[in-house]
Amino acid sequence: MHSKRDPIVEALCRILPGDRVISGCERVAPFECDALPVYRERPRAVALVRSEAEVVAVARLCREWQVPLVSRGAGTGLSAGARPDAGGILLVTSPMDRILSIDPDAMTARVQPGVVNLQISRAAAAQNLFYAPDPSSQIACSIGGNVAENAGGVHCLKYGVTVQNVTGLRLVTIDGEVLTAGGDCPAQPGYDLLALVHGSEGGLGIVTEVTVRLTPQPSRTRMLMADFPTVRAAADAVSAIVRAGVIPAALEMMDALAIEATEKFCHPGYALDAAAILLIDLDGQPQEVAADMAVVEPVLARSGATRVQRAADAAQRELWWKGRKSAFPAVGRLSPDYYCIDGTVPRHRIGDVLEAIDRFAARYQLRVANVFHAGDGNLHPIIMFNGREVDAVDRVEHLAADILEYCIEVGGTITGEHGVGLEKIDQMAVQFSDAEIAQFLAVKDALDPDRLLNPGKLIPTLAHCQEYRMLRKSDG
Amino acid sequence: MHSKRDPIVEALCRILPGDRVISGCERVAPFECDALPVYRERPRAVALVRSEAEVVAVARLCREWQVPLVSRGAGTGLSAGARPDAGGILLVTSPMDRILSIDPDAMTARVQPGVVNLQISRAAAAQNLFYAPDPSSQIACSIGGNVAENAGGVHCLKYGVTVQNVTGLRLVTIDGEVLTAGGDCPAQPGYDLLALVHGSEGGLGIVTEVTVRLTPQPSRTRMLMADFPTVRAAADAVSAIVRAGVIPAALEMMDALAIEATEKFCHPGYALDAAAILLIDLDGQPQEVAADMAVVEPVLARSGATRVQRAADAAQRELWWKGRKSAFPAVGRLSPDYYCIDGTVPRHRIGDVLEAIDRFAARYQLRVANVFHAGDGNLHPIIMFNGREVDAVDRVEHLAADILEYCIEVGGTITGEHGVGLEKIDQMAVQFSDAEIAQFLAVKDALDPDRLLNPGKLIPTLAHCQEYRMLRKSDG
Repeated sequence: MHSKRDPIVEALCRILPGDRVISGCERVAPFECDALPVYRERPRAVALVRSEAEVVAVARLCREWQVPLVSRGAGTGLSAGARPDAGGILLVTSPMDRILSIDPDAMTARVQPGVVNLQISRAAAAQNLFYAPDPSSQIACSIGGNVAENAGGVHCLKYGVTVQNVTGLRLVTIDGEVLTAGGDCPAQPGYDLLALVHGSEGGLGIVTEVTVRLTPQPSRTRMLMADFPTVRAAADAVSAIVRAGVIPAALEMMDALAIEATEKFCHPGYALDAAAILLIDLDGQPQEVAADMAVVEPVLARSGATRVQRAADAAQRELWWKGRKSAFPAVGRLSPDYYCIDGTVPRHRIGDVLEAIDRFAARYQLRVANVFHAGDGNLHPIIMFNGREVDAVDRVEHLAADILEYCIEVGGTITGEHGVGLEKIDQMAVQFSDAEIAQFLAVKDALDPDRLLNPGKLIPTLAHCQEYRMLRKSDG
Repeated sequence: MHSKRDPIVEALCRILPGDRVISGCERVAPFECDALPVYRERPRAVALVRSEAEVVAVARLCREWQVPLVSRGAGTGLSAGARPDAGGILLVTSPMDRILSIDPDAMTARVQPGVVNLQISRAAAAQNLFYAPDPSSQIACSIGGNVAENAGGVHCLKYGVTVQNVTGLRLVTIDGEVLTAGGDCPAQPGYDLLALVHGSEGGLGIVTEVTVRLTPQPSRTRMLMADFPTVRAAADAVSAIVRAGVIPAALEMMDALAIEATEKFCHPGYALDAAAILLIDLDGQPQEVAADMAVVEPVLARSGATRVQRAADAAQRELWWKGRKSAFPAVGRLSPDYYCIDGTVPRHRIGDVLEAIDRFAARYQLRVANVFHAGDGNLHPIIMFNGREVDAVDRVEHLAADILEYCIEVGGTITGEHGVGLEKIDQMAVQFSDAEIAQFLAVKDALDPDRLLNPGKLIPTLAHCQEYRMLRKSDG
């Protein structure tokens, strides 16, 4: 089965049963990429782990042999953060998929990293509790990956992203040490390793257990949909709602192209003549929802909404959300290829950025649909293109870089929830100064002195930064 | 004026005007401690800084001469985190006290580190915004110190502690590099330096600018007071309220001794026959507050409250809160001396911990009053003693250690909002393993390789940990 001549594979087989060590070019092929398949690499070997003790043993092996170690869960990541390293071991935590305990008094669940996001809410439902962060991939993505990317979701405006919903975790370092960060209480003395691990993309250690905060299920949720004559008016309404003191459970925006694509795809009943729509969930106690509704509806009207509708019932609400959730495949039908990017801007700058995206797209003769977490200022421009056209991919890459770098210019960032991975490693050189990058590398070295954990992702080298900055200067 | 023979003082005087360099044993005396005066030390020199450029210059001087650098703001800290180092420079950021800008659209304020906490809310009030974290010292403490200690407050249950209300900061490292962490958007790629700096007690760098999140002022606040026949019943009511899906703006608890002391001190109208009371603020839109009230009142009744009162008007609400806020000086009147400690436990373990505190106190023949942020599980036991009694201080220290270490035992931590400083450096050895302490030291070394920044605070050496653990073992 295994290429017994590879000493790393042989050593792995002494740690794990043979059926959980995968090697050989064809057998490792299913693991060559995550959900951004433009980046591919076949690992030297795949290790399917079932326990923290196995993770410790694999980490020690990698340290001893100085072999790169990339860890992943379900592989649903969108920035190639889980792309394997050709010379290294790919450690897969998916088999660690047990919910260890649910404590309804503490309102927490202790879970292994391979537990699928949605499983937690399903298991907690009997206690009227749920796990709030809900990335689009929540039926497949696992909590270990959610921590690695600090995943967001539609309901993170009100309830926070992953880091705000995790109270503790266990982390195996490349030395095989097991560290506990956080615990049952959010407040912890010492340096905040818990926050440090969130979004670190497997570069500081391997998460082997996560304690998540559970939230009481709201007793009522009502949905509003508002149509706007301009993208700017819809964007300004987003700020106005939050400014009025209401934090909706969800506050999403779709522009005309996204509306058109979705309406053709699954007929959610969106207004084809609107330049943009907002989809808004308000949740809480019934009276609280009524109170929020009484604030939000006039704000929408004052912001220039041409129509504001309340979902009549659960079925209509479901249909309206179905449209939003189908937006990516729907746009996919309008175009041979598409590429979704992820940036965040201050909420009150959304209008400026959407207008800039239009200008940039025209420059490269490309079309962009926008469907995104407006309340968080987390944009997801979907660039439509035909990969068979000459230089199409090149134009898409330039447009994506222009958009992300404009996000930085208005005080935003190059990612909201998809992470940096390999995809946006260049833009780190724009977002951060050399002193800041050097500091990130020093923090990485504090946990991973030989830089064996997910090398080449998230934090570029200083040389890489300088090269990219020179390249952009010569472009521009 | 200055002892010109000290080359450090001379070098400082080349950086700062002479009136902002303080040296000489008597002249530095006012700076010898923070608000935990049991720890005192006179610094070699005090530097009053007015700009980031001055901070950079002082940091470089300390690095060059390998001199310890302790930074502080208003000096209101309660764990000796700002106690000077005898051989080093004490850098005081209080003169950096300007609010640089308030952006009502972004709902943020950019401020210098010496700005007093309450000033921010005062300046933002015209925009109907406020800065939510409200430590008891908010009329005096400054935002730089709030970041250093990750300060909490009565209203942090609903609105979060400092780290959840800061979106960005500027940090000067001991090398004199200026780093930006965070920004106008909360989501940031790379490692979370913003979170890392919170609670780091000046050990990673000196904060020179803070961008804080502002919150819309709630349009209504109503207050409830509930009397309970047992401490346990009151504690259980705290969990039950949150479990019912309501997050009060404030949820505070006082036990019989605290009630008695306060009632004698300022007559807020508390029930002298209650074993414990809860003080609850509910805020938001008027309908939302009514909805929360309709949930909370029955929960209190079901939890065994013997009486639940609503504050009739603003004056009564103010009086009820005045009692809570006077609790420390009030307890001070009942006893020649008192010592307030700070620990956090999971909310549903409050009852167990309060009962344990009673048992421990009896062991050392001491009395303890309890008045605390119950919603956060953040306890503030006030140990009453007479410093003139033989071995009183020794008994107090042992009782404090027993309480803090019991907090750890039930899944809590040794601090909620006062920090570790020097006061609780021993307990770090109980809260964390050697591997975890070693990791903290590695993170410190990543930013402060010569360990010049606030040495000896927050993170103990491994030798210190081992000594303390042996000492506790021999204590029995």
